[in-house]
Amino acid sequence: MFRTIAVKKNNELIKDLEITELVSGDFKWYWIDFQQPDKEEIDFLRSPLSFHPLAIEDCIHHLQRPKLDYYDDYDFFVAQALNQKTITREEVNLFLSRNYIVTFHHEPSGEIDDVWNRFSQSTNIEQWDPSHVLYHVFDKMVDNYFPLVNQIDDTLNEIDENSKGRSMEALLKDLFETRHDLLSLRHTISPMRDLLYRILNSQRLTSVIEKRAYFSDIYDHLLKLTEMIEASRELTTDIRDSYISINSNETNHVMKVLTVITTIFMPLTFIVGVYGMNFTNMPELNWKYGYFGALGLMVLIAAGMTLWFIKKGWFK
Amino acid sequence: MFRTIAVKKNNELIKDLEITELVSGDFKWYWIDFQQPDKEEIDFLRSPLSFHPLAIEDCIHHLQRPKLDYYDDYDFFVAQALNQKTITREEVNLFLSRNYIVTFHHEPSGEIDDVWNRFSQSTNIEQWDPSHVLYHVFDKMVDNYFPLVNQIDDTLNEIDENSKGRSMEALLKDLFETRHDLLSLRHTISPMRDLLYRILNSQRLTSVIEKRAYFSDIYDHLLKLTEMIEASRELTTDIRDSYISINSNETNHVMKVLTVITTIFMPLTFIVGVYGMNFTNMPELNWKYGYFGALGLMVLIAAGMTLWFIKKGWFK
Amino acid sequence: MFRTIAVKKNNELIKDLEITELVSGDFKWYWIDFQQPDKEEIDFLRSPLSFHPLAIEDCIHHLQRPKLDYYDDYDFFVAQALNQKTITREEVNLFLSRNYIVTFHHEPSGEIDDVWNRFSQSTNIEQWDPSHVLYHVFDKMVDNYFPLVNQIDDTLNEIDENSKGRSMEALLKDLFETRHDLLSLRHTISPMRDLLYRILNSQRLTSVIEKRAYFSDIYDHLLKLTEMIEASRELTTDIRDSYISINSNETNHVMKVLTVITTIFMPLTFIVGVYGMNFTNMPELNWKYGYFGALGLMVLIAAGMTLWFIKKGWFK
Amino acid sequence: MFRTIAVKKNNELIKDLEITELVSGDFKWYWIDFQQPDKEEIDFLRSPLSFHPLAIEDCIHHLQRPKLDYYDDYDFFVAQALNQKTITREEVNLFLSRNYIVTFHHEPSGEIDDVWNRFSQSTNIEQWDPSHVLYHVFDKMVDNYFPLVNQIDDTLNEIDENSKGRSMEALLKDLFETRHDLLSLRHTISPMRDLLYRILNSQRLTSVIEKRAYFSDIYDHLLKLTEMIEASRELTTDIRDSYISINSNETNHVMKVLTVITTIFMPLTFIVGVYGMNFTNMPELNWKYGYFGALGLMVLIAAGMTLWFIKKGWFK
Amino acid sequence: MFRTIAVKKNNELIKDLEITELVSGDFKWYWIDFQQPDKEEIDFLRSPLSFHPLAIEDCIHHLQRPKLDYYDDYDFFVAQALNQKTITREEVNLFLSRNYIVTFHHEPSGEIDDVWNRFSQSTNIEQWDPSHVLYHVFDKMVDNYFPLVNQIDDTLNEIDENSKGRSMEALLKDLFETRHDLLSLRHTISPMRDLLYRILNSQRLTSVIEKRAYFSDIYDHLLKLTEMIEASRELTTDIRDSYISINSNETNHVMKVLTVITTIFMPLTFIVGVYGMNFTNMPELNWKYGYFGALGLMVLIAAGMTLWFIKKGWFK
Ligand SMILES: [Mg+2]
Ligand SMILES: [Mg+2]
Ligand SMILES: [Mg+2]
Ligand SMILES: [Mg+2]
Ligand SMILES: [Mg+2]
Ligand SMILES: [Mg+2]
Ligand SMILES: [Mg+2]
Ligand SMILES: [Mg+2]
Ligand SMILES: [Mg+2]
Ligand SMILES: [Mg+2]
Ligand SMILES: [Mg+2]
Ligand SMILES: [Mg+2]
Ligand SMILES: [Mg+2]
Ligand SMILES: [Mg+2]
Ligand SMILES: [Mg+2]
Ligand SMILES: [Mg+2]
Ligand SMILES: [Mg+2]
Ligand SMILES: [Mg+2]
Ligand SMILES: [Mg+2]
Ligand SMILES: [Mg+2]
Ligand SMILES: [Mg+2]
Ligand SMILES: [Mg+2]
Ligand SMILES: [Mg+2]
Ligand SMILES: [Mg+2]
Ligand SMILES: [Mg+2]
Ligand SMILES: [Mg+2]
Ligand SMILES: [Mg+2]
Ligand SMILES: [Mg+2]
Ligand SMILES: [Mg+2]
Ligand SMILES: [Mg+2]
Ligand SMILES: [Mg+2]
Repeated sequence: MFRTIAVKKNNELIKDLEITELVSGDFKWYWIDFQQPDKEEIDFLRSPLSFHPLAIEDCIHHLQRPKLDYYDDYDFFVAQALNQKTITREEVNLFLSRNYIVTFHHEPSGEIDDVWNRFSQSTNIEQWDPSHVLYHVFDKMVDNYFPLVNQIDDTLNEIDENSKGRSMEALLKDLFETRHDLLSLRHTISPMRDLLYRILNSQRLTSVIEKRAYFSDIYDHLLKLTEMIEASRELTTDIRDSYISINSNETNHVMKVLTVITTIFMPLTFIVGVYGMNFTNMPELNWKYGYFGALGLMVLIAAGMTLWFIKKGWFK
Repeated sequence: MFRTIAVKKNNELIKDLEITELVSGDFKWYWIDFQQPDKEEIDFLRSPLSFHPLAIEDCIHHLQRPKLDYYDDYDFFVAQALNQKTITREEVNLFLSRNYIVTFHHEPSGEIDDVWNRFSQSTNIEQWDPSHVLYHVFDKMVDNYFPLVNQIDDTLNEIDENSKGRSMEALLKDLFETRHDLLSLRHTISPMRDLLYRILNSQRLTSVIEKRAYFSDIYDHLLKLTEMIEASRELTTDIRDSYISINSNETNHVMKVLTVITTIFMPLTFIVGVYGMNFTNMPELNWKYGYFGALGLMVLIAAGMTLWFIKKGWFK
Repeated sequence: MFRTIAVKKNNELIKDLEITELVSGDFKWYWIDFQQPDKEEIDFLRSPLSFHPLAIEDCIHHLQRPKLDYYDDYDFFVAQALNQKTITREEVNLFLSRNYIVTFHHEPSGEIDDVWNRFSQSTNIEQWDPSHVLYHVFDKMVDNYFPLVNQIDDTLNEIDENSKGRSMEALLKDLFETRHDLLSLRHTISPMRDLLYRILNSQRLTSVIEKRAYFSDIYDHLLKLTEMIEASRELTTDIRDSYISINSNETNHVMKVLTVITTIFMPLTFIVGVYGMNFTNMPELNWKYGYFGALGLMVLIAAGMTLWFIKKGWFK
Repeated sequence: MFRTIAVKKNNELIKDLEITELVSGDFKWYWIDFQQPDKEEIDFLRSPLSFHPLAIEDCIHHLQRPKLDYYDDYDFFVAQALNQKTITREEVNLFLSRNYIVTFHHEPSGEIDDVWNRFSQSTNIEQWDPSHVLYHVFDKMVDNYFPLVNQIDDTLNEIDENSKGRSMEALLKDLFETRHDLLSLRHTISPMRDLLYRILNSQRLTSVIEKRAYFSDIYDHLLKLTEMIEASRELTTDIRDSYISINSNETNHVMKVLTVITTIFMPLTFIVGVYGMNFTNMPELNWKYGYFGALGLMVLIAAGMTLWFIKKGWFK
Repeated sequence: MFRTIAVKKNNELIKDLEITELVSGDFKWYWIDFQQPDKEEIDFLRSPLSFHPLAIEDCIHHLQRPKLDYYDDYDFFVAQALNQKTITREEVNLFLSRNYIVTFHHEPSGEIDDVWNRFSQSTNIEQWDPSHVLYHVFDKMVDNYFPLVNQIDDTLNEIDENSKGRSMEALLKDLFETRHDLLSLRHTISPMRDLLYRILNSQRLTSVIEKRAYFSDIYDHLLKLTEMIEASRELTTDIRDSYISINSNETNHVMKVLTVITTIFMPLTFIVGVYGMNFTNMPELNWKYGYFGALGLMVLIAAGMTLWFIKKGWFK
């Protein structure tokens, strides 16, 4: 499926012309949007649009990274939007020229739809041109990164404060998934930031350079996002290391309790065992105060052990 | 709310003029300070001040990072102060031109108040100009970072020495919070340092370049702060890793005590259990020296175990 | 073994000429491919091809890293393919000139075979030249990296989800081997990326510069691969650290169970031991409700201990 | 307190002139050294020396980092010496001009004293000039870093070999303190190295450029020191991580011993307990070989457990 | 001790001339090699060779890092060889000029000996010049690094596979020593690589630039070595972390065995203890099926505990 819109020299809009009409016609500029195109529609990229085979290959294959390639008559961009629900990457390919912009995407793109509607209902058509469309598409994409990063921020704050009193196992699982998401977000946002940097510093993209302030604004947002992601990742490391420290400290404490109890009662249990033996000849058993002597001995041993642990500082 | 102050060509000060009077008037230069402005006051940025929509958007939205944007007639700065109590970021936006400076902030700003008072009570008005105001605002902001970093330093020293003998749990909690604060401070101070670097190396900010030594001094302080923060963060890592090492070593020691006690007493307790059984036919029970033989056997076992542990080096 | 193919000025192909015929003949350009050459064949590099001794040495020795050396009449490349089964590096050496390309490899190279066949069966011979061969060889090599990286990705996903419910020991072993493979892949792919970067930014490789878009495409793939490897390595670190956290937390929990059980039952077992002693004079034994008193005492102790642990939060 | 020395045009030395005499006099060059100056002496910096207020402020405040500021008629350096006993930083401020050098320090400086004496007793006065003094002061400072770094190296070797057989707790404490000292040393030496780098690459410090080989020599020493510190820090990390590994492995071993003993003796102790019960109707007790049967059962259980542990590989 | 060799204008060799003869003579070029020189021989550096005091100081002092210093008439290099047995650094100092090379070393140098012999027995003397000697000395040094790095690689493979079935303690000790050696190797090889980089990019070393391909070959080897060392270090980190993970996992498992055994048998042992008490009034003891009831109760408790652990997944 594809749709087209053309701007005539008198700033009038015509919709849904055929691609051949656009290529051969005398328009101020036009926009072709390939939405989930089928094989035949993809062939329009070859003819009549006659884009370079490498760029067409990049359009067709999904596994791409944001990039910018210069060709003789146009510039080719690969950008990545993030699906708000699955956090998966969705690729948008753009061909930019002085008098046309071609957008191409295998998944439905809310960002493109938004810009398409805004443009086709615009009252000041004369202010729009292909690079203006490019700006708005990129701007929408980057704006849509924020809710995802903020959501992670919220998750992290919840983990950090743990107001719901959840178990450490659940928290660790959440933490690990959050790190996974951050890795995934960074994998999209970093190359997008690098792409914007290239655009801003390009000598060739003259139509973009005229809109420097606008693209610079997108770049600022990407810088901000990168910093937020890095800060969040550091925070997850800190929380996890803090958990490990606390656990290691608590294990230590638990071990001490166990050892104190064991060390005090094991010798006592041994002694009572001794006097529970059934030998016929055990002189102590018949002593008048044997029992009380044994009890006294055990009190002494328990007290001694306790003192020893106090001296070792285990009760601190 | 906003306030204004204007310098006449004869270096006389006039306060609280309307913005329209300032814009149309013939002053040497003037300063407008928007303090927690309401919606109508914000509209003055659009008209009569006619700033660029992107800059105005940056003023209104809170989530910003320190930055510098060049516009045709003025330069736009976003700077961040740190609230002394909550360590939260407070944004100050500044528009700098040859003949005016506009400051804009949603929270009350002690730094701006200080500079405002100092300027309006100044006796050498001729030495002041918009870039001089900019310097003083930035200088105050950066000076106010120091108490926060120093306070963290003090906390760290206290944790390190632990003169109050607090529990390791409490120390670990403090440590984690300190790392959190350091992350937060770095998140403000690093971009501020980058901003000052851009200012110092800018070809366009001619009025600032004339005051190079002054802005360079602020940049030095930011470098120093960055190094202090990095050093503090490394120190927290070291303290935490040291705690983990100590804990791991102590756990090891506690385990050995437990194992030695258990290994010595378990076989003994088993033996006394054997001779506590009530079988009718247990020949040893009737031996004359059965009891003493059993005691002797147990002494031998205990001694053997002890020797084995000594040989294994567990008592080292 | 070696094979040759030459392109005549009229774009006709001649196969399997002798090297001396090629060097002295008047061809548009020719390609010599040394496949697992023996010592005598290697000597052809010295004469009649007369390559520089250092380049010949680099050909012969296996232990190399991807590189590019400029010589007066030709450029010398070392590239590395990855064996699909063993993930070991296989070196391919290439000498590139305006009118010849020489490929040299000690192991059979599927990549070279592919390009050789494609070229010798090509119908548009006039489009091929030495740098076009170079592009196709590099392109095939880099394409063959992808299945290896993807395979690791799959392994990681399987470890992460552990749908087969394997033991943690097995998972940790897999994880460690995956990290090993990633290290090994990076060791080939990083220098290949650096090589492509050098090629793209070289001032001397004029024939390559004309095909910039093509080599740039390979470079993009290498960038993508590098990012995938780095992300995978970070993910392995995360999974491992997550395992350690979970283990540490679980150990803590297990310790608490053990300690609670021990702490409750050890005193009780001691008390029953006391009343199992055989002293003749033990007044309590003859009390009417001695037994029930003892049972009551033990219930009290058990309850007290349990309350103490609840208060300490060990049952949370 | 301050002292002065001036070189006349005929290379004669005059000591202890007043600062006003120096400033107004016609000397080849002179040196003023402010040692722990009081408030009135500090005022000499303002007048008659008339240094820039920012430089004077940097002199007075202690909290500085090594730096270089260019002013119109002189260059201002902040350098840091290390107190040999406390490893604390001691700041030395230097003003360098063609015809004077002013040194300023709040603590006594052994380095300055050395150079002062060497100069005032020199026989070839004509070879000295302000930049020569600067070189000697920096050289002395950096030479004095070496004993501190070497001392740490010795401590680390002692910890690594542990020839004195100290406890791991003591070693970990030493290790942590060593890391602390390394952090502290790096905090001085890194900025000093950066300062020397700036000096070597400065276009303005013409008098220094003539002595390039000398300052380059100091820079080499600082590079060497930086590498020594980094290597030492990595070594401390390695030692600590090695300790943790060893501890973790040992804990594992200790746990196994404990578990083996417990698992073998607990069931046995239970069984002897069973036959120690005083029920009137316990048929086994009256069997002729009941006792020996019980002993045999227990041998079987112990042997079975032992085999099970051997099979699990716990005795490896 | 020192030795000399000079090349006459007619490419004839003369050995063992005095240094004064060489300096004043009219030779094509000459080579002086100081092997473990005594104090008097060191003085030849001052006169008649008249090298700069700083370079002489660098020769004498052992603690150096590889470097390159330009002096007016010659260039001064410090290089480091590695002793094949002790992996300690051995310094070689070289003075290079158009018509001489001076090598200076405190320890015997196999590399220098090799080159000396090769040169003095060479049949094509006209191809040699001072920079050719420099190349061969550096080449030999760097070639001698490889066996050391390969040896570490072998050790690591042995640790990784542990075919000899050694204990984890022994493996951890080896691992730590390997890391130590890698640190030590990197400490030599990294600065050597940086030195070669400086040589290759120097504008001044014209005689070296003519031999660019040769020095570039050495640099490639150093790059390869650096990568091998980094990869080995990462591998040691991975092995160690893998050990810690495995240990942590195993400890967890051992703890569970211990806890299961304890939790099942402690209550049982308590119960048999209860019925082993000697109270005169214990009704259960005289019940006909008291004993069997007690046994039944204990079977129930054991089964319940086991089910509880199965439910908790501890037997997975
Ligand atoms: Mg790609
Ligand atoms: Mg990507
Ligand atoms: Mg690209
Ligand atoms: Mg990325
Ligand atoms: Mg913005
Ligand atoms: Mg922004
Ligand atoms: Mg961290
Ligand atoms: Mg920020
Ligand atoms: Mg910006
Ligand atoms: Mg930041
Ligand atoms: Mg300052
Ligand atoms: Mg400063
Ligand atoms: Mg650290
Ligand atoms: Mg390699
Ligand atoms: Mg190379
Ligand atoms: Mg690599
Ligand atoms: Mg591609
Ligand atoms: Mg990580
Ligand atoms: Mg500092
Ligand atoms: Mg500075
Ligand atoms: Mg530092
Ligand atoms: Mg030196
Ligand atoms: Mg040196
Ligand atoms: Mg390390
Ligand atoms: Mg670690
Ligand atoms: Mg070194
Ligand atoms: Mg150097
Ligand atoms: Mg190094
Ligand atoms: Mg080589
Ligand atoms: Mg090589
Ligand atoms: Mg690693």
